[in-house]
Amino acid sequence: MSQPKYEQPDPNLDLILERVVDVSPELVWAAWTKPEHIKKWFTPIPWKTVECEIDLRPGGMFRTVMQSPEGQNLPTNEGCYLEVVENRKLVWTTALAPGFRPRNIANYPFAFTAIITLEPHGSGTKYVARVLHTDVEGRKKHEEMGFHAGWGKALDQLVALAKTM
Amino acid sequence: MSQPKYEQPDPNLDLILERVVDVSPELVWAAWTKPEHIKKWFTPIPWKTVECEIDLRPGGMFRTVMQSPEGQNLPTNEGCYLEVVENRKLVWTTALAPGFRPRNIANYPFAFTAIITLEPHGSGTKYVARVLHTDVEGRKKHEEMGFHAGWGKALDQLVALAKTM
Repeated sequence: MSQPKYEQPDPNLDLILERVVDVSPELVWAAWTKPEHIKKWFTPIPWKTVECEIDLRPGGMFRTVMQSPEGQNLPTNEGCYLEVVENRKLVWTTALAPGFRPRNIANYPFAFTAIITLEPHGSGTKYVARVLHTDVEGRKKHEEMGFHAGWGKALDQLVALAKTM
Repeated sequence: MSQPKYEQPDPNLDLILERVVDVSPELVWAAWTKPEHIKKWFTPIPWKTVECEIDLRPGGMFRTVMQSPEGQNLPTNEGCYLEVVENRKLVWTTALAPGFRPRNIANYPFAFTAIITLEPHGSGTKYVARVLHTDVEGRKKHEEMGFHAGWGKALDQLVALAKTM
């Protein structure tokens, strides 16, 4: 089955983190979908994720609150899940509020949709996080904010946590 | 199971067309999901829908081109399907491009998500079209453009077509 053009990665608009990790897809999935786990790995230390709420189904809420190293809480992030395929694929966006309502994204530097895919790889997982932006400017802003270092460090934390689970 | 607050209709932000129609959910579903049917009912006459492309799955494309009574084609509309439950529920949005990519909606008067639900009602269907907007301004603009008359007339056309199917 050929993939339509609009589902193929676009290097101008997408940022991708791809890595083989030595924990199973089931553990990576658990880390991504349980609030008590998200709070332990989602934000690169010394930042923290101090609140998390998950309603794991299309249209459901993915809510987090981050805290700066100085102890200040940032505004709440409320994303919306789009696709939930247990142990294999998780899609959520900041462009819609929970319940699929379009969001006014003019107040944000950029909106994105994250597509996390997990594929068994030996006893580990081929992990791909593809992050889709509206336009080149959005992709650049996210890249300059430190996407690769940030998402990479968070993944290190996820893997370290998964090994204790 | 209680419905979360973010899934409950909000009269300030939503427009709703609700009607019992005397054709089955299966026929209404077919009318909504086959391009050859969409072209016959989707746009209140004398407007026309002259092109339609449907990739019926979450993330898939819902593309239409409308033509004015003067014969001029409008810019292409490309929406993204979000939820597809055969014969019961169809959700799509203009806030995302196909493939779940966030769209720059600053160039449009408003973005919306449409939630079409079909429920068997005798030999007919309880039809509910709930259209979710970002803010009160978006809802008002859509209302002033003639949402109720337009979606109502299109539904009349859908029912008339379904009776010939």
